[in-house]
Amino acid sequence: MNKTDNQISMPVIRRLPRYYRCLSILSENGVETVSSKELSQILNITASQVRQDLNHFGGFGLQGCGYDVPHLLDKVRELLGIYRAKRTVIYGIGNLGRAVVCHFDFIKLGFEICGLFDTNEKLVGENIKDLTILHDSTLEDFLLQNSVDAAILCIPTDSAEQVVDRLYAAGIRCFLNFSHYDITGKYPDCIVEDVHLSESILTLGFLAENL
Amino acid sequence: MNKTDNQISMPVIRRLPRYYRCLSILSENGVETVSSKELSQILNITASQVRQDLNHFGGFGLQGCGYDVPHLLDKVRELLGIYRAKRTVIYGIGNLGRAVVCHFDFIKLGFEICGLFDTNEKLVGENIKDLTILHDSTLEDFLLQNSVDAAILCIPTDSAEQVVDRLYAAGIRCFLNFSHYDITGKYPDCIVEDVHLSESILTLGFLAENL
Repeated sequence: MNKTDNQISMPVIRRLPRYYRCLSILSENGVETVSSKELSQILNITASQVRQDLNHFGGFGLQGCGYDVPHLLDKVRELLGIYRAKRTVIYGIGNLGRAVVCHFDFIKLGFEICGLFDTNEKLVGENIKDLTILHDSTLEDFLLQNSVDAAILCIPTDSAEQVVDRLYAAGIRCFLNFSHYDITGKYPDCIVEDVHLSESILTLGFLAENL
Repeated sequence: MNKTDNQISMPVIRRLPRYYRCLSILSENGVETVSSKELSQILNITASQVRQDLNHFGGFGLQGCGYDVPHLLDKVRELLGIYRAKRTVIYGIGNLGRAVVCHFDFIKLGFEICGLFDTNEKLVGENIKDLTILHDSTLEDFLLQNSVDAAILCIPTDSAEQVVDRLYAAGIRCFLNFSHYDITGKYPDCIVEDVHLSESILTLGFLAENL
């Protein structure tokens, strides 16, 4: 997925979380206004790019006055959908799934974890962060009885296809995908963010060898 | 970091792990030759881009014959430095650090985990994957007595600066960074791969709201 539409490219969209993080810190520190130049220095991009980026999202600044931090933060939060938490299941509660459940404050990121699933009988019934791990066999019932918007896949590539088939059949179209399975290859109408940690490790290896 | 030098751009480098993964699967399945067209279909890019990419890395194909899979895989492995495992410490063995230790077959990715460190006394002495978690206070001694090439930071942003200072002082210049601390901002001579999982989650939120 390279573009959301003809106007906003993925590189611009991918900077939005960085604005969010930066503005959150400024806001926590009581900063009330910020110039595009200041934002550009924090984000290590040009001031012109900051202005262009924010124009894409509606242009919240006034020339010469800078940006109102709480207002801009609010707008960025709204763009990122943080005010409308997407109800989300995590499938696969191995080492990675467990870390994902425990490590993130999902509500602050616009997601609410409502179900944890695994095929491993030994894990079923265990509580993590007020949620009980449920057995894979109850997935369809759960999705039927609960309104679920998204799924996080923390499973190996080999088992991903059949799990995605089931989630898709139950109406899930939004995925955070830690496997290497190509979801949009089969289901082009899905919104997928792939996270390929091993590719980051390999890239570091290349840079270490060749720089 | 956007470029390794004037020739090879980061987007090209970032495709190299995908070639590696794809060629590994072909090789495991006994496939001996592959055309740029076939590679392009698997990788979802154009055949011309495949040829350009591989030319960047030395051009291993013969016109009309396609690429020799074992040979190309070997070359890609070499480029990624997989044959020269970088000795690596992981700092921070909370949920995320533990998942990182357990989840990856680092040797296959060109890294060898040789030390685990944490400040939490309760974790010190625990064994994970044949390695014992060591106390933070022994970090400098360990780095002095062992040849270490890289560090993986699985700690919050707030505590990252002082840890990076210590690792840098001990000669470490290669980092996989799960924190949001800007290592190259302070140490431009470091090779850093930042992994910002929360930004992937936020990006998914934006796409889910706006597509």
